[in-house]
Amino acid sequence: MNDHSFSKAEKEALYKAMAQRRDMRHFNSEPLDAKTLDKILYAAHLAPSVGLMQPWRFIRVKNSDLRKQLHAIVNEERMKTAEALGERKDEFCRLKVEGVLSCSDVLIAALPDKREKHIFGRRTLPEMDLASLSCAIQNMWLAARAEGIGMGWVSLFEPEALKKLFKMPKGSHPVAILCIGHVDEFYEKPMLEIEEWAKTTPLDEKVFEDYWEE
Amino acid sequence: MNDHSFSKAEKEALYKAMAQRRDMRHFNSEPLDAKTLDKILYAAHLAPSVGLMQPWRFIRVKNSDLRKQLHAIVNEERMKTAEALGERKDEFCRLKVEGVLSCSDVLIAALPDKREKHIFGRRTLPEMDLASLSCAIQNMWLAARAEGIGMGWVSLFEPEALKKLFKMPKGSHPVAILCIGHVDEFYEKPMLEIEEWAKTTPLDEKVFEDYWEE
Repeated sequence: MNDHSFSKAEKEALYKAMAQRRDMRHFNSEPLDAKTLDKILYAAHLAPSVGLMQPWRFIRVKNSDLRKQLHAIVNEERMKTAEALGERKDEFCRLKVEGVLSCSDVLIAALPDKREKHIFGRRTLPEMDLASLSCAIQNMWLAARAEGIGMGWVSLFEPEALKKLFKMPKGSHPVAILCIGHVDEFYEKPMLEIEEWAKTTPLDEKVFEDYWEE
Repeated sequence: MNDHSFSKAEKEALYKAMAQRRDMRHFNSEPLDAKTLDKILYAAHLAPSVGLMQPWRFIRVKNSDLRKQLHAIVNEERMKTAEALGERKDEFCRLKVEGVLSCSDVLIAALPDKREKHIFGRRTLPEMDLASLSCAIQNMWLAARAEGIGMGWVSLFEPEALKKLFKMPKGSHPVAILCIGHVDEFYEKPMLEIEEWAKTTPLDEKVFEDYWEE
């Protein structure tokens, strides 16, 4: 406890949002109200960014034809990923990996063009722009969970296909299809753990002292 | 409001953490207790990750000689960045851009080696590993703020120099020097805004409908 510390209840609320946040693929048909979506977007805008460049852009996909074309792009990459997975192909195909058509709202999250002018904190690590955008998306995920809303980050797509579909400029880069909407329930554990796709590993295997220990 | 929604007070606590979180460079000399640092690391481990790969590794820098060598690496990059900034060089040099020597604890956050075996969600977007690690770091930032602790993400370093210093494996990749510790006060606004290095731009300029509009 110190002067700047939040109250016990406030801390608990924050840790609860982190612990109960899930990467959702199952949505119900209830539409999301615009005010809640605005709150989620506002959370993104509170994120930190390298050199204060705020490299986040969001496209709200309202047109249903566009959404169908987006889904086709995701499905194509789903099949290519299945092939690339070799012996785990069938297992992968049984997973629900996206909710593009069933969720209430779809947002494309992307890095803008003309990022090369931002040098501060990026001279040796240009990918810090993606790091900033990812922090913004984590804020959205937590805000959505607190609002009782599910969100899923889909990265199964060919970036060039998305850029063409949404008329994005040459130097921009889409990194997420965010599926957002009401859910019947949040998964108890990460869905890929429930489906036994992958196991989580303990934190203490990931923390070293002074030198890399693996 | 829906069945899964948090209470009003819980939501407010979450948004407060997001709004008051700052990328800190000024620390005081009070040491951080181990329990609080553990909570911050635990928050990282609650993050989402692509294909559940949990690609986060943290090195706690305990040895003071190592910390000094780390600081030298940061200072070298600080000078190279200053040169690269051209006409903004002097302005940049006046900024406090890191708190490596003054903060209580330093963590190196890195991606592990052998990431190429994780294909799910990364076939066309291999950088999703960095996205996951960044979500984990955002969780740490929010947890630190709620605990009343400052954290700064320093990306002014040559990755190869860091890898050598901390004996990191060839395929790994350090992305952050995290400076963590007590602070006298949190900046009212992002420090780069206070120092007039950069201006924030409104959210509505960053949200488009159906097609990119810039």
